[in-house]
Amino acid sequence: KQYRIAVIPGDGIGKEVMPEGLRVLEAAAKKHGVSLHFDHFDFSSWDYYEKHGQMMPDDWKEKIGKHDAIYFGAVGWPAKIPDHVSLWGSLIKFRREFDQYVNLRPVRLMPGVPSPLANRKPGDIDFWVVRENTEGEYSSVGGRMFPDTDREFVTQQTVMTRTGVDRILKFAFELAQSRPKKHLTSATKSNGISITMPYWDERVEAMARKFPGVKWDKYHIDILTANFVLHPDWFDVVVGSNLFGDILSDLGPACTGTIGIAPSGNINPEGDFPSVFEPVHGSAPDIAGQGIANPIGAIWSGAMMLDHLGEKVAGKSIVDAIERTLAERTLRTKDLGGNADTTACGKAVADMVD
Amino acid sequence: KQYRIAVIPGDGIGKEVMPEGLRVLEAAAKKHGVSLHFDHFDFSSWDYYEKHGQMMPDDWKEKIGKHDAIYFGAVGWPAKIPDHVSLWGSLIKFRREFDQYVNLRPVRLMPGVPSPLANRKPGDIDFWVVRENTEGEYSSVGGRMFPDTDREFVTQQTVMTRTGVDRILKFAFELAQSRPKKHLTSATKSNGISITMPYWDERVEAMARKFPGVKWDKYHIDILTANFVLHPDWFDVVVGSNLFGDILSDLGPACTGTIGIAPSGNINPEGDFPSVFEPVHGSAPDIAGQGIANPIGAIWSGAMMLDHLGEKVAGKSIVDAIERTLAERTLRTKDLGGNADTTACGKAVADMVD
Ligand SMILES: CC(C)[C@H](C(=O)O)[C@@H](O)C(=O)O
Ligand SMILES: CC(C)[C@H](C(=O)O)[C@@H](O)C(=O)O
Repeated sequence: KQYRIAVIPGDGIGKEVMPEGLRVLEAAAKKHGVSLHFDHFDFSSWDYYEKHGQMMPDDWKEKIGKHDAIYFGAVGWPAKIPDHVSLWGSLIKFRREFDQYVNLRPVRLMPGVPSPLANRKPGDIDFWVVRENTEGEYSSVGGRMFPDTDREFVTQQTVMTRTGVDRILKFAFELAQSRPKKHLTSATKSNGISITMPYWDERVEAMARKFPGVKWDKYHIDILTANFVLHPDWFDVVVGSNLFGDILSDLGPACTGTIGIAPSGNINPEGDFPSVFEPVHGSAPDIAGQGIANPIGAIWSGAMMLDHLGEKVAGKSIVDAIERTLAERTLRTKDLGGNADTTACGKAVADMVD
Repeated sequence: KQYRIAVIPGDGIGKEVMPEGLRVLEAAAKKHGVSLHFDHFDFSSWDYYEKHGQMMPDDWKEKIGKHDAIYFGAVGWPAKIPDHVSLWGSLIKFRREFDQYVNLRPVRLMPGVPSPLANRKPGDIDFWVVRENTEGEYSSVGGRMFPDTDREFVTQQTVMTRTGVDRILKFAFELAQSRPKKHLTSATKSNGISITMPYWDERVEAMARKFPGVKWDKYHIDILTANFVLHPDWFDVVVGSNLFGDILSDLGPACTGTIGIAPSGNINPEGDFPSVFEPVHGSAPDIAGQGIANPIGAIWSGAMMLDHLGEKVAGKSIVDAIERTLAERTLRTKDLGGNADTTACGKAVADMVD
């Protein structure tokens, strides 16, 4: 079977890292007899917005909705276009309208990447953050009253639905069950956020009863962030709401040295819609155009995409190649103390694919 | 003038660390000619609840509302009493009803405390987290619909008022202005939480115009937690909403090695009501009764209380004594690799007060 992939580089360094991601995907596809077809799209970018006054064409869903997956660079350029236009007009739209209710990110200390944590070695930190990706704190329900007076106030609702909470928990428990440690940690804050978070806890308990083989625990988000720093070896699968998952999946990669190499998947597990795979880093306008961006986040996202498509062997061959590349100082980009540029690093990974 | 302090040890290790806090306060008061009068209260504890069926007497406000400050141990014992009863029945009640709208916590790497971060030395990390303490995400507004059906959902509103946001920002900007670096960082998430957080940003910008001498920046909470780990030296004063401040003021102390020594003040700056000073750690039922709890969090909170009362010299004498004590392995408690028990550590600090 041939997989049809929609490729959207987006803004800034998105445009620089994507060619390297594609290079590595092609290398892995060739080695492992996987057939990939790429369709390129220029929307979801400042360039497109400048020309058309909107982030995406009206028929964006027809254009990319039938692909097997979407391979995405980065979007956003706050100096030129407000985030609520660029992000809500593309990335967050994908998540909502393609029902990508799982945001999945590995947290893994890789060889050659110095950890900011003292005395942690590759192998010590290796877990997944599973984030609810469609509801929760990122609602659009709320408003402002008494504007420009002393009585002014704003409200915004956090919304958790039974459907939304249960399906992300099910995904997380299943993932935990598939791993050797079979351990799930839930992020909560039910001692302070007194309505939605106790509900989250309640649903976790109900779901846990269906997975008797999974050991589980929960921490309030404040102490959980502390434990990411103090005890990153405690975790196997960590599940959180949209906001908590967002925080933990930036903090986790930071604990492993850099968010420059972290990948992510915005996944619709049922396959009713395409899933989006993108590096965790943004468009980084400050370093765009210099050819120094680290392409590993994009490359690793490509590996997650192959995995999602069911091509696990090809996916793993990329992750292994990343590990071997990072182990060599001369093949790493500047942010990791190396001297390779974006292309050299991408080529190195492609060459290492086995 | 004699200061009247209400002393509430509360639960668990609260009862063990408070005597050491008082010991040190008395030593500092004596050295510096400060007159302190302590009134002891047994409410806000499981013991009290067991006897009376409520956390506090009906006239708790009359009992402690006229004191110059409240010195608090810890409350909560989830195995015996749900958090929403114990915490919302005391600690959070104080914050709301005594309008303690500032939660203030230092983040400071102390000598002798091994940082979980590689290559950080005392002096490298030294900032304040200023947390809004009465509104925001900890609202009680919301509810559940269609219970026990597939359509079930819950909502909870985040509420930000002009009054609430402006006064915490003013406090934070004033604090920044009083410090050598004059640098303020605001925690936001306006790219995802699309109504309340842009409002927060808007008020930060408005307040910043009144403090032209303060340099300020803002980070989204996800990358901000990452930067606490990667660049803790970037911060001077960090201000956040109730939830974001809560997270940052646990993560910050974790980056400096332990939340066991972190202090906090729940402050009503106008002095219309007493402020509460308490260690960041909780009642720790798992180690209660063993005499091994670290009393430094409580002792340091006592120093913050003296500071708040205007007795800055006496307050500083305690912080200096803490630094000298922590520098000696034999005077530290077990959690910091020492072999002192709670009392020995408390006595050591009291002896060091100069
Ligand atoms: C106990 C809990 C409600 C409280 C909070 O979240 O405010 C605690 O974490 C704190 O920081 O004082
Ligand atoms: C850009 C922003 C809206 C987004 C989020 O918070 O979801 C980003 O931080 C992410 O994690 O993908």
